[in-house]
Amino acid sequence: MPRPFFEPLDASRVPRFAGQPSFMRLPTPASAAGLDIALVGIPFDGGTTNRPGARHGPREVRNQSSLMRRGHHVSGVIPYERLAVADVGDIEVQPIDLMQALDQIEAGIAAICAAGALPLAVGGDHLTTLPVLRALSKASPGRGPLGLVQFDSHSDTNDRYFGDNLYTHGTPFRRAIEEGILDPKRIIQIGIRGSVYAADEHLWAKDQGIRILYIEEVMDLGPEGVIAEIHRVIGSAPCYVTFDIDGIDPSQAPGTGTPEVGGFSTHQAQRMVRGLAGLQICGADVVEVSPPFDIGGLTALTGATILFELLCTIAAGYPAPARP
Amino acid sequence: MPRPFFEPLDASRVPRFAGQPSFMRLPTPASAAGLDIALVGIPFDGGTTNRPGARHGPREVRNQSSLMRRGHHVSGVIPYERLAVADVGDIEVQPIDLMQALDQIEAGIAAICAAGALPLAVGGDHLTTLPVLRALSKASPGRGPLGLVQFDSHSDTNDRYFGDNLYTHGTPFRRAIEEGILDPKRIIQIGIRGSVYAADEHLWAKDQGIRILYIEEVMDLGPEGVIAEIHRVIGSAPCYVTFDIDGIDPSQAPGTGTPEVGGFSTHQAQRMVRGLAGLQICGADVVEVSPPFDIGGLTALTGATILFELLCTIAAGYPAPARP
Amino acid sequence: MPRPFFEPLDASRVPRFAGQPSFMRLPTPASAAGLDIALVGIPFDGGTTNRPGARHGPREVRNQSSLMRRGHHVSGVIPYERLAVADVGDIEVQPIDLMQALDQIEAGIAAICAAGALPLAVGGDHLTTLPVLRALSKASPGRGPLGLVQFDSHSDTNDRYFGDNLYTHGTPFRRAIEEGILDPKRIIQIGIRGSVYAADEHLWAKDQGIRILYIEEVMDLGPEGVIAEIHRVIGSAPCYVTFDIDGIDPSQAPGTGTPEVGGFSTHQAQRMVRGLAGLQICGADVVEVSPPFDIGGLTALTGATILFELLCTIAAGYPAPARP
Amino acid sequence: MPRPFFEPLDASRVPRFAGQPSFMRLPTPASAAGLDIALVGIPFDGGTTNRPGARHGPREVRNQSSLMRRGHHVSGVIPYERLAVADVGDIEVQPIDLMQALDQIEAGIAAICAAGALPLAVGGDHLTTLPVLRALSKASPGRGPLGLVQFDSHSDTNDRYFGDNLYTHGTPFRRAIEEGILDPKRIIQIGIRGSVYAADEHLWAKDQGIRILYIEEVMDLGPEGVIAEIHRVIGSAPCYVTFDIDGIDPSQAPGTGTPEVGGFSTHQAQRMVRGLAGLQICGADVVEVSPPFDIGGLTALTGATILFELLCTIAAGYPAPARP
Amino acid sequence: MPRPFFEPLDASRVPRFAGQPSFMRLPTPASAAGLDIALVGIPFDGGTTNRPGARHGPREVRNQSSLMRRGHHVSGVIPYERLAVADVGDIEVQPIDLMQALDQIEAGIAAICAAGALPLAVGGDHLTTLPVLRALSKASPGRGPLGLVQFDSHSDTNDRYFGDNLYTHGTPFRRAIEEGILDPKRIIQIGIRGSVYAADEHLWAKDQGIRILYIEEVMDLGPEGVIAEIHRVIGSAPCYVTFDIDGIDPSQAPGTGTPEVGGFSTHQAQRMVRGLAGLQICGADVVEVSPPFDIGGLTALTGATILFELLCTIAAGYPAPARP
Amino acid sequence: MPRPFFEPLDASRVPRFAGQPSFMRLPTPASAAGLDIALVGIPFDGGTTNRPGARHGPREVRNQSSLMRRGHHVSGVIPYERLAVADVGDIEVQPIDLMQALDQIEAGIAAICAAGALPLAVGGDHLTTLPVLRALSKASPGRGPLGLVQFDSHSDTNDRYFGDNLYTHGTPFRRAIEEGILDPKRIIQIGIRGSVYAADEHLWAKDQGIRILYIEEVMDLGPEGVIAEIHRVIGSAPCYVTFDIDGIDPSQAPGTGTPEVGGFSTHQAQRMVRGLAGLQICGADVVEVSPPFDIGGLTALTGATILFELLCTIAAGYPAPARP
Repeated sequence: MPRPFFEPLDASRVPRFAGQPSFMRLPTPASAAGLDIALVGIPFDGGTTNRPGARHGPREVRNQSSLMRRGHHVSGVIPYERLAVADVGDIEVQPIDLMQALDQIEAGIAAICAAGALPLAVGGDHLTTLPVLRALSKASPGRGPLGLVQFDSHSDTNDRYFGDNLYTHGTPFRRAIEEGILDPKRIIQIGIRGSVYAADEHLWAKDQGIRILYIEEVMDLGPEGVIAEIHRVIGSAPCYVTFDIDGIDPSQAPGTGTPEVGGFSTHQAQRMVRGLAGLQICGADVVEVSPPFDIGGLTALTGATILFELLCTIAAGYPAPARP
Repeated sequence: MPRPFFEPLDASRVPRFAGQPSFMRLPTPASAAGLDIALVGIPFDGGTTNRPGARHGPREVRNQSSLMRRGHHVSGVIPYERLAVADVGDIEVQPIDLMQALDQIEAGIAAICAAGALPLAVGGDHLTTLPVLRALSKASPGRGPLGLVQFDSHSDTNDRYFGDNLYTHGTPFRRAIEEGILDPKRIIQIGIRGSVYAADEHLWAKDQGIRILYIEEVMDLGPEGVIAEIHRVIGSAPCYVTFDIDGIDPSQAPGTGTPEVGGFSTHQAQRMVRGLAGLQICGADVVEVSPPFDIGGLTALTGATILFELLCTIAAGYPAPARP
Repeated sequence: MPRPFFEPLDASRVPRFAGQPSFMRLPTPASAAGLDIALVGIPFDGGTTNRPGARHGPREVRNQSSLMRRGHHVSGVIPYERLAVADVGDIEVQPIDLMQALDQIEAGIAAICAAGALPLAVGGDHLTTLPVLRALSKASPGRGPLGLVQFDSHSDTNDRYFGDNLYTHGTPFRRAIEEGILDPKRIIQIGIRGSVYAADEHLWAKDQGIRILYIEEVMDLGPEGVIAEIHRVIGSAPCYVTFDIDGIDPSQAPGTGTPEVGGFSTHQAQRMVRGLAGLQICGADVVEVSPPFDIGGLTALTGATILFELLCTIAAGYPAPARP
Repeated sequence: MPRPFFEPLDASRVPRFAGQPSFMRLPTPASAAGLDIALVGIPFDGGTTNRPGARHGPREVRNQSSLMRRGHHVSGVIPYERLAVADVGDIEVQPIDLMQALDQIEAGIAAICAAGALPLAVGGDHLTTLPVLRALSKASPGRGPLGLVQFDSHSDTNDRYFGDNLYTHGTPFRRAIEEGILDPKRIIQIGIRGSVYAADEHLWAKDQGIRILYIEEVMDLGPEGVIAEIHRVIGSAPCYVTFDIDGIDPSQAPGTGTPEVGGFSTHQAQRMVRGLAGLQICGADVVEVSPPFDIGGLTALTGATILFELLCTIAAGYPAPARP
Repeated sequence: MPRPFFEPLDASRVPRFAGQPSFMRLPTPASAAGLDIALVGIPFDGGTTNRPGARHGPREVRNQSSLMRRGHHVSGVIPYERLAVADVGDIEVQPIDLMQALDQIEAGIAAICAAGALPLAVGGDHLTTLPVLRALSKASPGRGPLGLVQFDSHSDTNDRYFGDNLYTHGTPFRRAIEEGILDPKRIIQIGIRGSVYAADEHLWAKDQGIRILYIEEVMDLGPEGVIAEIHRVIGSAPCYVTFDIDGIDPSQAPGTGTPEVGGFSTHQAQRMVRGLAGLQICGADVVEVSPPFDIGGLTALTGATILFELLCTIAAGYPAPARP
Repeated sequence: MPRPFFEPLDASRVPRFAGQPSFMRLPTPASAAGLDIALVGIPFDGGTTNRPGARHGPREVRNQSSLMRRGHHVSGVIPYERLAVADVGDIEVQPIDLMQALDQIEAGIAAICAAGALPLAVGGDHLTTLPVLRALSKASPGRGPLGLVQFDSHSDTNDRYFGDNLYTHGTPFRRAIEEGILDPKRIIQIGIRGSVYAADEHLWAKDQGIRILYIEEVMDLGPEGVIAEIHRVIGSAPCYVTFDIDGIDPSQAPGTGTPEVGGFSTHQAQRMVRGLAGLQICGADVVEVSPPFDIGGLTALTGATILFELLCTIAAGYPAPARP
């Protein structure tokens, strides 16, 4: 007997403004058991060095994801016909103690992995990606370090902040490399820009072998060129995809903690995410949506759309259902 | 074996910004079976004659109700210790066909009544109260017309709008009186104000015996005086309580379709609602919260608080749990 | 044959959100000829010393005045049955040259006076009241200085700003007294508050005989006490009424250039304005509504409501139409 | 004697923030008699399936159109020198009864057509285009079905919503095709995107022969390529142009009911509209501007600009005035 | 030679919108040396359990304090004539590590105390008051526990949150009592309200002897009655004054992390603060202004005004300058 | 001994949200003595013909410039290592008397020039550029007229407004040409668009020899093509750079007085500004940032970023520091 799949609430019956919002209007089982993909919120922003608020991200992305319909207008993929996808709620993480929070997040993702589901997370600030990566790493101990496709305006490979604080949203990928979770030679960062602390700001990252695509190169290459470069860097081994919403131009994603003007557009972002098809993705997230700084829900809508694009891209790797 | 009660999500474990919002963070059973009080959303604003948006009310009231804790700081009542209360979701109502919508709403409330639960609804515009009253009336055929405690800036007893439109948010109580559902001599309207279409605007209402407390009288009497007048008019027979958020001053409830400056305050509203204790309330609602016109969620927060006050007031009529 | 009166657009036919907004939805004749009361906008804010934007006031007050209906719910007065009232548009005033602007405003009001109509103006910053008073004074050369009822948080009787600038929104009533247009002994200022430049800030005003009711006294007296004091100071001779929207608390009138927290409420304001009935009012205005700083149109709605209260109060002095 | 043309209010005399706003600051005659082009508002949003508010569109587009000057900076066309253009106000349409509203809108447009004027309308939701098309069709009974140039993110050719509701803003062009008003082989839809209900979402539309230009193709072709395709599909027979503001990216048009991220830019939109010159346009509209969801008036400004571009494009087909 | 006092930037020379904002437009010396009162910001919100953002409080309160003039309109006090007052900037506190932050704040206040100045602080969340109290306590080792006048909607005497987190903005006064810094019998809390976690929510506080004035009692007593009660509880021994902006009604202070509707008004707050004159105040603060949730700067303006009221109240205890 | 340079506040020590905001977090010396580049605010908007508010520009640009770090991510230039740069505060200019204000601004810039520093100003409306140019001209009497690189949506070469007003933000460059300060043949205007008053709107400008790059040409040329054209027009003689923020698309710069949709993007703007390297720039400004119309600080952030780009571009012409 085939495993049952979950369907979003039917908008031809219940209007989009009605009902409790879950990610993509999907059911909300108590756990990830039986799921292929677990949509999960990580409402934590304790690693934020400037403007807070990403703790409110999961709720507003859920809210705006009410506007998502079932399928993709380009690929024709309807993920819910191929995979068991549901919203497993938010990880229980408290906002006061950062080190405890990292453990709570890791435990929450570990439970999803243990259930055999792929985590598709909504942050939270970018530090939340670190415990997600830790959990993924521990769940597949023999797999080796992961590759990373990072859409972002910042490299997030700084060493420490405000003296000796090692864990902030500006340091997760340095920590992950140090911990052996990520393979720096299979990291590509797309859209990096903004003023820098020092002329050699990205020296450490480049020395590790990280491929930084500054925004100028992104604009000059165009989505197709960027996609080719992603596939070249990542190859066929497993990778994680992290989408910091501040990679997108602030006019299209104003609700974020550290905006940098002059970013790529949502349209370019959608095309680049679609181009990830074919990668071996073992987890993904959308982070840094900060509703207190958002305008009219635009950033949360953008976040929900990117989440849907990621979901469809991953689902594209699974067989389509037979149609009569 | 005692019936199990429902508890809100524990804020000492899950922060208020986390998780899917339900009314008061309560569980969301699929039906009202086994409930004493069913919190229910009615996302419909098709009766609105000016600024729309109350269809988005239930979702935002749910969102802001995350700030509600378990008990009342004055009465000490914790409703969840006395009654089975839960969020049964939104009534399925489409936004296109007004007459069909009235039937859908009535059916949704009828199901709650059939389950033996008292409906505590969140609109939607004020027309949504009409089908709620119809369902309550049909559920208790021998009970006779209900009394009505109406907090509002408008009487909502007009006859018709835009030619021959009988069903708008300016007409529900005229219709309910005509249909024999409400006893006009046991209707009290509190906070009425604003410019009028005609010098004899409220002549029909007064001729029916409705007691109109204009805002000037509300301010002069104070909450205690208003409460006494409510009890005098309503007496001990069953009644319904409807709270139009536009009764409150627009500085405290800006997100509504027909704001009238110079209203009573939230503090006064809370005191008046508390004074309803002792009435035989068979249903209640909070209506006309229109999030597209809201500012910083203030109106939705006010609506959630009034909803909580109504819940505690009703619960106060039930025995407190024995404490060891 | 009786003179024809003007009626607002009928809201039972054209919804309030439809149509071009005029003050009170009234017709917009090309001039004040034949009018008893001319509603007129004065879109000028060149006298503003801090936050500008009152030039946009007339348009947004027109917009929000769409919510006004025909009559007053307390007095029962329907001004359009007693008087010919219409919206004569905005005075043509340019924003660049302050001294020229004062002349333009005076000329615009002079034309209204010449037509025999009473001007009921919407500013504009408070400096715009000065040329209105000049025009009124010249139109009735033998009348003597006017009294002034001023609702405000500031006395606006400073001498000069930024060196030798004599004409700003902080100086109009000093200039008007110096010019012999106002009788300082028949000026009452209601709601004065806020920090002061000097301990003897209001010494000049008090020395002239101006009656300053600080906000503390307003709150302690209540509307009835304030009304009595107004009548005592103004007496039966002609007066002008000027309502600076910043007299009202900023929570109810945030959109203004120089907000001062802790003001009187809109409800109190309405009652005080109603209490002006019986005064010999020869002109009035509502000023300092600054839409760029407004929130959700609340200040403009408050301004429109005060304008309507002023209109009804003036109309109350005219005979009611005979009813069959 | 040449027919007199209408001129916008002169901004060198009356500042843009002054005066009652009409479309393009044009005069507001009581009817379309003598006009070549009638600018008209259709304040109705009863066909909206998600976020309402387009009923407020005409007023805010009028407001922002105060920023439009007389002529076009690229073509040099000054429409008011070639054609009699004025603002005939809003069609009287009530918000409660959808079927009655469709009749009211059709009657309003029929009156414009009867006067010999071309309607250039501002909605309102997209359902309002259906009665406009009906009126145009009946006004020229022998003309045959019209072509349609549709800028939009949605095809709006769905069959029914929420059970059997045939008339929503998601269905107007299916109805118009069924009614024989539009020739599907001469329909081109530009900018279609967003998630879909089903993999074969647009199957019916394509089967009818509609040319759908998805956003990806729009971006790849560029404005020039799109213009060529428009002319190929539409040819030289009469057509209607409908511009749903949600075709534009939500960062430039956030105030709309069903935003879809990743759209074309305003700059691209302007170029595409200019490229319509040469088509035989017999009517046009701008729809789905929803001010309650707008941010800083940006969407209304964009709508006003597109309206001006449409006006200039149509006027370009008429002879320029002789210059001395 | 008399010590020089500092004067705010002269608004008759430099407009209020010009220049870098400091608290009250005062000079910004590098340290508190020579000051009587040091205005100081504490930009930290790591103790926030719900909506963050109070870290941005000091900057926006500085910004809005540009509207403060030199003196008090009721008392006539001009603090800058009696005391050396200046803005010593923000304490350097990082946002990542809560325990380190508490030490940083304490060190910053200790430096002010060591310079002999009284700290008048702007938070930050309410947890920031704990290290301020610690520094004050250590600076005067023999003084004994302080009294506390607390304007607030919450008691902030909970024990722990989210498991075992002892330090949050809901616990500072429990910690301070445990640490012997505050004398619970000389604590008065004014304006407490909102739903509660448990029926015995405030049992611990009351058992310690804290005097809780719930909002109902505040409203019934009025400012004069509250002032009397404050003096009765506090007496003549040293005390600290802490003003949580959420004590004020959210319509007047929406920008805060945990709003509770139904609060006292700004006007009432001003009167109550003025009534503190005569107490032996050794420090004070305004906390929980959260700009990301603020509306039009209203909460920051309210915070700046309360800060000014506190400053004038303290200054009232010092001799006025001799006037020639 | 080398002259000391100024460094921005260290963000690894003091978070970006802390401290008083100055331009780029630089020190704020009392004068320009010893500076190479003086960042200076000009808070004046008296030349504005439509929506005011640019007087608030310097403060908010300072605020958002807290997000700027030390160096440029493309050029690697760290201006503070090459030049003495500081924030000299705002020019003291009153808002009431336009002609006096022009003199005040000129005097303020003259002082900077006299100190030997290059002025890098933040307006204010575009009229403020005229007195800046006058001061620059007088400071180097033998230099001859300057070239001008103008990013803008308007040519600002109109003759007069509202009758005979010669000095508005629509006329500065006509005046500067007439006064012999600018060489019209070395003026290039980039991004001009929007509807026009007359078909020959720019006839005078073109007759003078000004090179107008309409937005269509800007988009077609791309940044590289525009840069080439700039260098062709300006050549190697001294020039001024003025960046009107309304040149950028309103989705990225909504907070401005006269928005024109369809502009160039921030990314394009950044590239064009970088391409100015090599020009002999003797002063520059960013104008028309109007915070009351801004959304979420986006325009001020864009303005701060352009200011930083200008600073880095100018600094690129100076030798880099020797690195050990």
